[in-house]
This record gives sequence, C-alpha cells and structure tokens, in this order.
Amino acid sequence: MNASKVPDIIVGRLPLYLRTLKKMKSENREITSSQELGGLLGISSAQIRKDLSQFGEFGKQGTGYNIAYLIEQLQRILNVDKVWEVVIVGAGDLGHAIANYNDFINHGFQISFVYDNDPNRIGSQVGQFVVRDVQSMIEDVQAQGIRVAMLAVPGAVAQQVTDQLIEAGIRAILCYAPTSLSVPEKVRVQYIDPVLHLQHMTHYIP
Amino acid sequence: MNASKVPDIIVGRLPLYLRTLKKMKSENREITSSQELGGLLGISSAQIRKDLSQFGEFGKQGTGYNIAYLIEQLQRILNVDKVWEVVIVGAGDLGHAIANYNDFINHGFQISFVYDNDPNRIGSQVGQFVVRDVQSMIEDVQAQGIRVAMLAVPGAVAQQVTDQLIEAGIRAILCYAPTSLSVPEKVRVQYIDPVLHLQHMTHYIP
Repeated sequence: MNASKVPDIIVGRLPLYLRTLKKMKSENREITSSQELGGLLGISSAQIRKDLSQFGEFGKQGTGYNIAYLIEQLQRILNVDKVWEVVIVGAGDLGHAIANYNDFINHGFQISFVYDNDPNRIGSQVGQFVVRDVQSMIEDVQAQGIRVAMLAVPGAVAQQVTDQLIEAGIRAILCYAPTSLSVPEKVRVQYIDPVLHLQHMTHYIP
Repeated sequence: MNASKVPDIIVGRLPLYLRTLKKMKSENREITSSQELGGLLGISSAQIRKDLSQFGEFGKQGTGYNIAYLIEQLQRILNVDKVWEVVIVGAGDLGHAIANYNDFINHGFQISFVYDNDPNRIGSQVGQFVVRDVQSMIEDVQAQGIRVAMLAVPGAVAQQVTDQLIEAGIRAILCYAPTSLSVPEKVRVQYIDPVLHLQHMTHYIP
C-alpha cells in the first residue's frame, strides 16, 4: 500500500480515531461502531467507514469494529507501534510546558533532549531534563538517529533552527512559532497556532 | 447566508487563507491567485476557489484576488473584524506561554484575564497580567460579556472549569488539556494536542 496516495486530510483524522479508541479500551470496551465513533467525534459514520477503508478491511458489516484490533492497525498505519525519540528546541515557558506534558510516552513518543541557546537556561532543569546547549543539537540528533522535533523558539530564529534540524536528519517538525517554515519535500511540518483555532470558532459565535 | 450550512472543514481552512493573505499584504502585495495561495499552503487551487465560493464571489476569472478586499471579507466571515476579549484559565507554564504570545491582538483577540486556583499563583504577574482567583471568574466573564476562553488547566479539572465557563457565558473554548470536554451544542471546542499532530506526521516517515 502506498501511504502517499491517501489524502492527507484522512491521515490527519486517524490520530483522532486512535485517541478515542484508546479511551474506550481504557474503559474495558471491546467493540465499537462507526456510528458511535462518529457521534463522539462529530464526524459522519459514512466518513469514518470511508476513511478506514482506505487502509484495509477492519470491521464486518453488522458486527462493528474490534477496538483492540483497530488500535493495533491504526498504530501500525501511523507508525506509532514503536516509540519515536523527540527533541524540544526552546526552553522558555512553552518548552517547559511541552517537556512536562506527560502523555507522550503512551502515544509513541519520548522526549530525549531539550535545547536552548541562552546561557542562563543551558544547564538548568526542565522537568526531568537538563537543558543542553543548542550547539550540540546537530551532533546529538545525528548520533541518536532522531527524526522528530518540536520547535518552541521565537519566530525570528525558527527558520535557522529548522535548517539545522533538517541537516541533522529531522524529518518531522511540530512548530509552535507563529511563522511559516520553508522545508524540503522530504520533511513534514505541522503548526500549532492558537489564532487559527480561535478564528475557526468565532465564525460560529453570533 | 447561513454560516452553519458550510462544511466545518472549509471554515477551518479560512484562518489559514487569512494568515497567508495578511503576510502578503505586509509585503505590500496587492493581487494573488488561487494557484499562488494553493502553492503556499499545499492545497489545490481548485479547492481554494471552491472553498471561497461558498461565501460569495471574491475574484474574477483571470484577474485573481484583491488581497486587501479578500482579507476584509474573510475577517467578516470569521467574525474577527472586531476584537474578542479572551480569558486564560491556568497560570502554569502553558498559561504563561499563552499569555505572553503577542500575536493575538493582530488577529482579533485580546487577553482580558488570567486565572488560577493556586494561592501561590494568585496575585503573581504573568506577562502584563496579574493572576486572578478563579473564584471571581464567573462574575468577571459575565460582567464583561466575554465569549472566548483558553483552557490551560490539568486534565482532571478541565471539565469542571468548562462547566463554570459555560455558565458564565463562554461560547468558544480552546482546550490545551489532553482530554475531551462535554459541552452543549451552542458551545464550540477546539483542542490543541501535540500528540495528534506528531502522529499525523510519523505516518509519512519511513
């Protein structure tokens, strides 16, 4: 199966399905349906069946989906049936918040290093991490074969740090800086920008 | 025009278009095309034309879009042709980071209050704000007629705070807590969850 043939918008919904299924499993549920998933997520059941059918046959008409099996399949499709090492660049308020977010490990990720370029921050403790000098970032990332980074630096230096991360081998960047990054095609970028979410909602407020 | 008839997925793309157009305007650009916008955003030009056509006629075949006019129209559609007051609940690392994010005001939002329930945080300074006791939240929100909130509290108390916010009149909640909120239909919720973005990207990493 060629993953790149599936529309990106569908791939983007799979983590939502996975999160919801894992919550069901934690409640000792065994079976669910596209109707139930759709109701919980505000997506039509037809859309959910269509999305999943892009990747194979995961349920039978009338019997629903086996939750544990579907979790396993989605984790495989999303490549989170293993644990990815992640670096955080930027040890300000946001870097602290991300480093202390304790839910990564249950979803396929673990923070390996936190970096900053500020001498006052280098060597300080952030959660369970000691902030490292960004000077050692390229070498660390290469040595560990790390592919995933979270960027919590000011917008003005985001592109420069991105170029270094890509040189070091990073292939996925989650960018918290309010800017657009220019990256080669082999690198994925996603943005976390509160303004986009807020504006999406105010459309609906009378 | 009945806003609720336009698919939510389309509404969700409008802030992206708006952000890109504003960047062009800041570079003194006057005209753009669906091709250019699409190239910058990784969306097909046909999709962009189709999205915009849901709300009216904003460009003419062959002459492209007037950037200033399209910005004005998108701001009107998204209801950000005015400034919304916003409260932040939770003055930990994440609350600090959000309160110090200085790009809200250029996009239709201004922080009015920051709340916490921790006596050690109440009265402390966060950016330009003094952290207020969450006990005064309902009264403040009602008195000012605030409709938008950002939730940066631990998952365990997120639902309780949400119920209070809704009681006070909040109609849009941007939730940073890794949890799902139960809200009445009149209230919009969006989630910022780094795990969803990371899993979306790892699908593509070989």
